[in-house]
Amino acid sequence: MGNIEKLKSIPLLSKINDEELNALNELLIEESFESGKNIITEGDTGNTMYILIDGTVDIIKTTIYKDEFVCATLNSNMHCIFGEMALLDNDKRSATVKAKTNCKTLSIDSEKFNKYIDNYPKAGIELLKLMNINLIRNIRAENDNLKLVYQALIEEIESN
Amino acid sequence: MGNIEKLKSIPLLSKINDEELNALNELLIEESFESGKNIITEGDTGNTMYILIDGTVDIIKTTIYKDEFVCATLNSNMHCIFGEMALLDNDKRSATVKAKTNCKTLSIDSEKFNKYIDNYPKAGIELLKLMNINLIRNIRAENDNLKLVYQALIEEIESN
Repeated sequence: MGNIEKLKSIPLLSKINDEELNALNELLIEESFESGKNIITEGDTGNTMYILIDGTVDIIKTTIYKDEFVCATLNSNMHCIFGEMALLDNDKRSATVKAKTNCKTLSIDSEKFNKYIDNYPKAGIELLKLMNINLIRNIRAENDNLKLVYQALIEEIESN
Repeated sequence: MGNIEKLKSIPLLSKINDEELNALNELLIEESFESGKNIITEGDTGNTMYILIDGTVDIIKTTIYKDEFVCATLNSNMHCIFGEMALLDNDKRSATVKAKTNCKTLSIDSEKFNKYIDNYPKAGIELLKLMNINLIRNIRAENDNLKLVYQALIEEIESN
C-alpha cells in the first residue's frame, strides 16, 4: 500500500479529496525507526507531528522519581498521530514515543503544516478535527488514569 | 462591549474577518447563569460548546468516591471555552462547569458549528486551532495533576 492509500485509509481523512491529499503527501517526510529507538523524547523541544503508518510504539512518561511507565501502546492500524501538541503550541514534548517494533512514520513540521492549511482550508479542517479527536481521546484516558491513581492514594491512606 | 467586540478580543480569533465573525455571531446563543448554577454537568450528554464572556466558573470533577474537587477556576478575561470535547466527539461531559459568579456565555451546538466551518473554512481553522490549544492546555495541566497525585501515592506507600 502506498502512502497516499495509507492516508486515505484513515477514516477521519476520508473527506480530503485527491488533489488535497497529493499536496499533503508531497509535504510529508517518510522516516524509518528501528525497534528501541525514540521517535520523540519527553522534554525535548520540537514542532513535528508524526502519523504512524507501520509498526507499534510505546508512549512513555517519566515520573518525578525518574521512573518510566508505558501509558499507551499504539499500532499503525489505530491510525494514530503523535507530536501534535508541540506542533500547535511549540512547548516541550510531553511524553517519549519509542518504536516497539521497526516503525515507519510520515511527518510534517509546524511551518509546512500552517502553510498547507492556509492553502487547503477544507483539508486543514479535517486535519485539525483529527488532531482534536486525538487530543480528546488522550484527555479522557488521562482522566481515567487520574481517577485510578487518586483511588489508590485514598485506599493507601485509609489502610493505615 | 458588544458580543462581536468580545469575540474580537480573543487573540486566537483575531484572524477571523468581520464577515466571518458576523456570521458566527448570528449562530451564537447568549445565555445567563446565576451564581451557583451548573452550566455543564459531568456525565450528561450534550453537544454544545460555550465561550465565557462574563463572570467566573469553577471546573469540578467527581472522584469515584463521589467527592467533588475544583480542578480549575476560569474567568472571562482568560478567553476560555468549555464543552468543546462533547461538541466534537458527542461523548459524555467530562466535568461540571459551575457559575462561581453570575455568568454570561455564547454557545453553539455541533450541528451549527459543523455547518459554519463548512461555509467558512478559514474561520473554521482558527476556531479549531483555538479549541486545540485549549485542549492542549488542559492535557498539560492534567499531566501535572497526575504527577502530583502519583508523587503523593509513592510518599504515602514509603511512609508505611
